[in-house]
Amino acid sequence: MSPRAVAAQESGFKRQTAANFSRVVIENVAPEIEEGAFPVKRVPGEAVRVEADIFADGHDELSAALLYRPRSEPKWIEVPMRPLGNDRWRAEFAVTGREDYLYTLKAWVDPLRTWLRDLKKRIEAAQDVAADLRIGATLIEAASKRAPAQDARRLRAWAAEISGEGEIKNRAQIALDADLGELAARFPSKRGCVSYGRVLEARVDREKARFSSWYELFPRSWNAGPGRHGNLRDVIDRLPYIAHMGFDVLYLPPIHPIGRTRRKGKNNSLDCKPEDPGSPWAIGSAEGGHCSIHPQLGTLEDFQTLFRKAQEQGLELALDIALQCSPDHPYLKEHPEWFRRRPDGTFQCAENPPKKYEDITPFNFECEKRMELWQEMKNIFLYWAAQGIRIFRVDNPHTKPLRFWEWLIAEVRREHPDSIFLSEAFTRPKVMYRLAKAGFNQSYNYFPWRNNKKELTDYFTELTQTPIREFFRPNLWTNTPDILTEYLQYGGRPAFMIRVVLAGTLGASYGIYGPAFELCEGRAKGPGQEEYLDSEKYELRRWDFESPHSLKDLIARLNRVRRGNPALQSDWSLRFHRVDNDQLLCYSKRSGDNVILAVVNLDPRHQQSGWIDLSPEEFGLDGQQPYQMHDLLTDARYLWRGPRNYVELSPEVCPAHIFRLRRRVRSEHDFDYFL
Amino acid sequence: MSPRAVAAQESGFKRQTAANFSRVVIENVAPEIEEGAFPVKRVPGEAVRVEADIFADGHDELSAALLYRPRSEPKWIEVPMRPLGNDRWRAEFAVTGREDYLYTLKAWVDPLRTWLRDLKKRIEAAQDVAADLRIGATLIEAASKRAPAQDARRLRAWAAEISGEGEIKNRAQIALDADLGELAARFPSKRGCVSYGRVLEARVDREKARFSSWYELFPRSWNAGPGRHGNLRDVIDRLPYIAHMGFDVLYLPPIHPIGRTRRKGKNNSLDCKPEDPGSPWAIGSAEGGHCSIHPQLGTLEDFQTLFRKAQEQGLELALDIALQCSPDHPYLKEHPEWFRRRPDGTFQCAENPPKKYEDITPFNFECEKRMELWQEMKNIFLYWAAQGIRIFRVDNPHTKPLRFWEWLIAEVRREHPDSIFLSEAFTRPKVMYRLAKAGFNQSYNYFPWRNNKKELTDYFTELTQTPIREFFRPNLWTNTPDILTEYLQYGGRPAFMIRVVLAGTLGASYGIYGPAFELCEGRAKGPGQEEYLDSEKYELRRWDFESPHSLKDLIARLNRVRRGNPALQSDWSLRFHRVDNDQLLCYSKRSGDNVILAVVNLDPRHQQSGWIDLSPEEFGLDGQQPYQMHDLLTDARYLWRGPRNYVELSPEVCPAHIFRLRRRVRSEHDFDYFL
Repeated sequence: MSPRAVAAQESGFKRQTAANFSRVVIENVAPEIEEGAFPVKRVPGEAVRVEADIFADGHDELSAALLYRPRSEPKWIEVPMRPLGNDRWRAEFAVTGREDYLYTLKAWVDPLRTWLRDLKKRIEAAQDVAADLRIGATLIEAASKRAPAQDARRLRAWAAEISGEGEIKNRAQIALDADLGELAARFPSKRGCVSYGRVLEARVDREKARFSSWYELFPRSWNAGPGRHGNLRDVIDRLPYIAHMGFDVLYLPPIHPIGRTRRKGKNNSLDCKPEDPGSPWAIGSAEGGHCSIHPQLGTLEDFQTLFRKAQEQGLELALDIALQCSPDHPYLKEHPEWFRRRPDGTFQCAENPPKKYEDITPFNFECEKRMELWQEMKNIFLYWAAQGIRIFRVDNPHTKPLRFWEWLIAEVRREHPDSIFLSEAFTRPKVMYRLAKAGFNQSYNYFPWRNNKKELTDYFTELTQTPIREFFRPNLWTNTPDILTEYLQYGGRPAFMIRVVLAGTLGASYGIYGPAFELCEGRAKGPGQEEYLDSEKYELRRWDFESPHSLKDLIARLNRVRRGNPALQSDWSLRFHRVDNDQLLCYSKRSGDNVILAVVNLDPRHQQSGWIDLSPEEFGLDGQQPYQMHDLLTDARYLWRGPRNYVELSPEVCPAHIFRLRRRVRSEHDFDYFL
Repeated sequence: MSPRAVAAQESGFKRQTAANFSRVVIENVAPEIEEGAFPVKRVPGEAVRVEADIFADGHDELSAALLYRPRSEPKWIEVPMRPLGNDRWRAEFAVTGREDYLYTLKAWVDPLRTWLRDLKKRIEAAQDVAADLRIGATLIEAASKRAPAQDARRLRAWAAEISGEGEIKNRAQIALDADLGELAARFPSKRGCVSYGRVLEARVDREKARFSSWYELFPRSWNAGPGRHGNLRDVIDRLPYIAHMGFDVLYLPPIHPIGRTRRKGKNNSLDCKPEDPGSPWAIGSAEGGHCSIHPQLGTLEDFQTLFRKAQEQGLELALDIALQCSPDHPYLKEHPEWFRRRPDGTFQCAENPPKKYEDITPFNFECEKRMELWQEMKNIFLYWAAQGIRIFRVDNPHTKPLRFWEWLIAEVRREHPDSIFLSEAFTRPKVMYRLAKAGFNQSYNYFPWRNNKKELTDYFTELTQTPIREFFRPNLWTNTPDILTEYLQYGGRPAFMIRVVLAGTLGASYGIYGPAFELCEGRAKGPGQEEYLDSEKYELRRWDFESPHSLKDLIARLNRVRRGNPALQSDWSLRFHRVDNDQLLCYSKRSGDNVILAVVNLDPRHQQSGWIDLSPEEFGLDGQQPYQMHDLLTDARYLWRGPRNYVELSPEVCPAHIFRLRRRVRSEHDFDYFL
């Protein structure tokens, strides 16, 4: 600790002086991430609801205002805050455009409103208020001096009447004029006003940062011919297949040249056959590095065609950026100073002792020349941004410095404010959350391993009902090339149905790794492992896209429901409801009039039934009238009544209801009248 | 918000650079009050247990240290922090002397410990570690350069052995030497070390700030003769009466001359008779102000005698400081600029509209000449401090600016670090807490109105088990001249017994206003009021000190128990235990081996019984063996066994047990063997 820092801090204990002095305290402001070091996140149309403890000594009336502005606007917009009780105050503003917003607070002792409040009490108690009227007139005159001409005239006239020659009773009534009171209060004295002293930021992302449906695929497996290396054109041919399912993000693992040195064989074997394609994450070879495309996948032109054709079908392309090299990456020759060396002069491979990843050479983000390294990393993102890419799925960000991401995302975002970064960090919660604070717009999370009712309820309550939601946007993946959970391995096709419905309704953003997912691929490499058997990470696979067991139609319905119901396009309204069966999970989301209630049977093996408790009034329904539950997956309609209703779900048929609540709009017994 | 402040804040969003860069994050530090703006509070012998979230990217080992020092010492003392799991770290230090302490944190990536950890794993996996040994030797040599000569020699020798010519297997074993590993880790590189960047303070008060037993009295009622004005000499005569009850603080309401103008008569009447003595809080007359003594109470010499004689009987004198004036106070003539005036030129009296306090003229702490006013207020405290007073009960601090108290207490404390300020603020919780943060060492609180089990459990859990305890020390008053609760009005003598036992066991600090309390005075001025009928605030009272119904002996026992049991001398160990009867409250406190379990019947009218659940093991008892519950109020001894035991309490006999837990020390059936 430097002496300067100590002195600066110690001075904090001495700020209590008669000269530099305000009676009002503003503290415990929310939302505020790490004392304002990080922004909260929003998309256009969302509100920032700001609360604070605001109080002073004594019994004077206080006023407080929320100040906000788009970053580029010089002028603050002021919103009055209102007291919620117990010295807590609140106001909110909506972000409209895509620009970032700033906000802060101020508060002041309000002698005018104090006077008006007290005058009312004095009049009620039939006290002599002659002197009080003169006091008030003085306050109003002072306010008039701070008001524009027209208002000033009205206030001066009011003050004159109040302190004039008329009967006290009449003047008292004039003093209580609510409109003029409001007007005068708009021009408070700066004396006694305190600023919060910290400007906070709301970072505004585009809508897709909040609401997105991801599909991940390995292009090399998408060729119909046996043993043939698929390419980007094969993916183009099958775009209708993906678009049919209703996804809006098409995410490709790294598409770069793959190293040959210490390339991994099938099932991650050290014994690599000549025909083995290697892991796409072992990036770089003589053919190029992070800004090149693997020749067997196609050309930059193919890439551009795929980008355009996908866009035409509503699919935005997302790339995987993995900041690491194969031993053959050109960087190792061009910039050996960016890597760690062993005492024998060889480059240090990636490892998590005793495990070694021989085909990967990590960067040393702390190296002497790190400024150049960091710049080059930024250039990779900018290169793909120049190709139109705005969605980056970042591989293992938690193994690179947190400050690096803070810097890099800010840099890329400055040039491309519409870029979206998805953090693939499966690590300890505090590191995951810090990456989100540092700027990642979406985050992988523990959803794959939250399977029972308590786990799901606790975790999604934490993510959606605590301050974590201000900066951490979960993206719920059913599976990834690294993660085939035991729930999927042992649950069969119903388990896949359950997990995709959970992902798509608990999460405004979710994703599947296909076609492994929709084809219900459940074979793991070994017991207790989450690796796929014959993983696409190390070999070409062929997929039976038209299998009758495919879940593609269910997924298409799910995504249609998501698109058609705003309630499912954000997470903050999530509420869990009681069911008297621990295998049934029930929760709702709402957006205005749009209310979705999901009921999921978490048991992939058995039919489960139970009684659901919910308060119809909570959803704006008349508790005395029946209401309709319209299952958007099956189109079945059920009539419910009151706070307790029965459900029964068979995993073999459909393990979930996704109900839309429909209110009765006419009294005739006709379902069409439910809206 | 000034543009400078905005710029300063916005720069906060840009701190992510490659040059200025540390991988380690320290956040969520506790205890820390309002970002370090206020100190935590301790007394000598207490510990400050510091926790923080500390983490970095990747898998490297981190080390962290707590740094602390007495404020006057230039050198930080370093304590290693230990990880608690989930990236939470902890260390603690004890404050010894009465000086204030500072503390802060640092943390760093520890390559040496990372290397040792990984080496172990590599050896277990039978990997070739030749290169790793050379890497380690380099790290150790680097550490040796930061070590003093003798340690440096040992480290260099170690490094030489590890990287030497011996067999790898032997060298690997040498490398794993735990002692040398410890030694090397004591000299980490500064590279990658991050300081918390904020110095926090632990303010150290004397013991009585935490543990004190207060007795409040009006000296003018302590003369035995009818209608005679009592004085300080009368109090001296009765000191043995107070000392017998075992109190250690004797607190007197204001002892200053009382104004005559608009003096209040009996029962707060506006109609004042010539013989009415007036309210002691209407301070100041022709005879003097805040630094004078009411002539009818005695002289400064009498005061000094009382001070000395009280001290001889273990009673420290505390004065009430009420920063307000009667209309006759000399200040109004000498410093009219310190007061607010009405438009007719008269001074503004105190009011809370529509209520008026005609006999009180408040200061205007915001007046132009406030620097002089604040200084004079400080002089009042310093004057009484010069008379030996170190305990100040401050009247209504919440009606004076919070900053004023921050300033004043710091000023007085600088000259008299042993001063104790008790805040008499019955107001909204956030204001009460802020006054405590601003420096008050003890605080009145809502105890008088917390009567049932849920209220008491919730409130004292909040006060003793949340971060509030770091700055807010409750002083539990059974009654005050302003507060005769309905519980006491309607509960009869048992209610008084119940409340004093609760106060003295729930609170390490507590107080009673006597003799009204021990004589069970329960008559209120009117229904729904908490004012005493014939309140001493406005008239002389005579008390029957020797009434057979007096609770003085119970109180004497209670205070003896408090003095004899360290468990009751602090609040943080408070735990509530389940009883299957909502009229019975059971809680424990402990200090080392000293364990007190209190059971209180909250119903002053009926006998109550129930079964108490507690885990004997929690108190270090053998759950299989009987243990003895020694009731320190009645000296009765009960044998309990296991986790569930029966109690029965009759309010007419004694509504509470204060048990001391006694463990069996020999196996014979002899109660004397319980310690």
